Amino acid sequence: MRYGRIPDETIRRLPIYLRALLFMSEQNIKSISSEKLADFIGTNSGQIRKDFSYFGNFGRRGVGYNIEKLEKEIKRILKLNKVQKAALIGVGNLGSAILAYPGFNIIGFNVAVAFDNNPNKIGRKIKDISIENVSKLCTLKQRKIKLAIIAVPRQAAQETADKLVKAGIKGILNFSPCYITVPKKIKVITLDIAMDLARLPYYMPAG
Amino acid sequence: MRYGRIPDETIRRLPIYLRALLFMSEQNIKSISSEKLADFIGTNSGQIRKDFSYFGNFGRRGVGYNIEKLEKEIKRILKLNKVQKAALIGVGNLGSAILAYPGFNIIGFNVAVAFDNNPNKIGRKIKDISIENVSKLCTLKQRKIKLAIIAVPRQAAQETADKLVKAGIKGILNFSPCYITVPKKIKVITLDIAMDLARLPYYMPAG
Repeated sequence: MRYGRIPDETIRRLPIYLRALLFMSEQNIKSISSEKLADFIGTNSGQIRKDFSYFGNFGRRGVGYNIEKLEKEIKRILKLNKVQKAALIGVGNLGSAILAYPGFNIIGFNVAVAFDNNPNKIGRKIKDISIENVSKLCTLKQRKIKLAIIAVPRQAAQETADKLVKAGIKGILNFSPCYITVPKKIKVITLDIAMDLARLPYYMPAG
Repeated sequence: MRYGRIPDETIRRLPIYLRALLFMSEQNIKSISSEKLADFIGTNSGQIRKDFSYFGNFGRRGVGYNIEKLEKEIKRILKLNKVQKAALIGVGNLGSAILAYPGFNIIGFNVAVAFDNNPNKIGRKIKDISIENVSKLCTLKQRKIKLAIIAVPRQAAQETADKLVKAGIKGILNFSPCYITVPKKIKVITLDIAMDLARLPYYMPAG
């Protein structure tokens, strides 16, 4: 099935729904109402119903959403229904934390290779993932890896992005707190943890 | 000035606008149109105008937004106009990366203290921030620290959150890939990097 254009904001929320649904599956829960799902995630049920309306109707009045079906459908929409290989560039503190991160598997991600420019790190392995010389970035095309995670220092981020574009990367998750410029057809998601922390004071009581 | 209720989605985007405005200030740019701001961030100008409409009108037709004014106003709304102290719990790879993170200062955040349960880490300093025994979490109330960043292993996250609540914390940025339960009046933002990576394949060309 093809859908009309789904708003970016809906796409942003789908993984959050997916994570909640996967958690519920683990608890052997079979179906859930939009109200309960909303409560669990901390949003409102109208938002959830609106988001799901873009790609069909998974709920039944009085019964709620079938969790297994919904999970499958969200994975299909997000193209998470097959294993996605990714490369990590930069194995400092943040890169090491990313390699050790347990959350990628549940969404079908596989960080297949890591790169660094530090001779003391090159050739080592973290969790079965080899750290290669960053000069080998150009091999990503042959290896059919199209996703990359940038965790290099800010000054090196743009140069790294340029090399990734040349190596045929189509999507970048950028952890460097800076703007990187790439051709329009390449999708960049910048994850700046300060931006999330910046929302907290708004919600805190005065005094 | 008090505003009506601003939607959470708008609040989520305000720090993203703020980051872009701060970047432009650095380049000595004085004003910007909603179209150029949208292009820069990768959103659409209608969204920006709608978001700004919740708290006044900062643009002038043909002139654009005054960057300095807009910056100040967003900081005021987000309560970022005074220094916010935060505590970090867990100084593993991720915690160390957070302590080294250069992005907090620009939004007025100050990670003032860190906690860990590893005797080899307690008493050490990273970037002038002392690592204290996690048993001292209860001192946060006296120190008037109301924000906390959780970067402990998943199994320890809920226990840590419970202790933070007892210590008077009002807002939590949670980096553990799990759900934590706290009283309703306490705001939790969970930052799961897998959720951001999960959005990339959707935007990538097939094949």
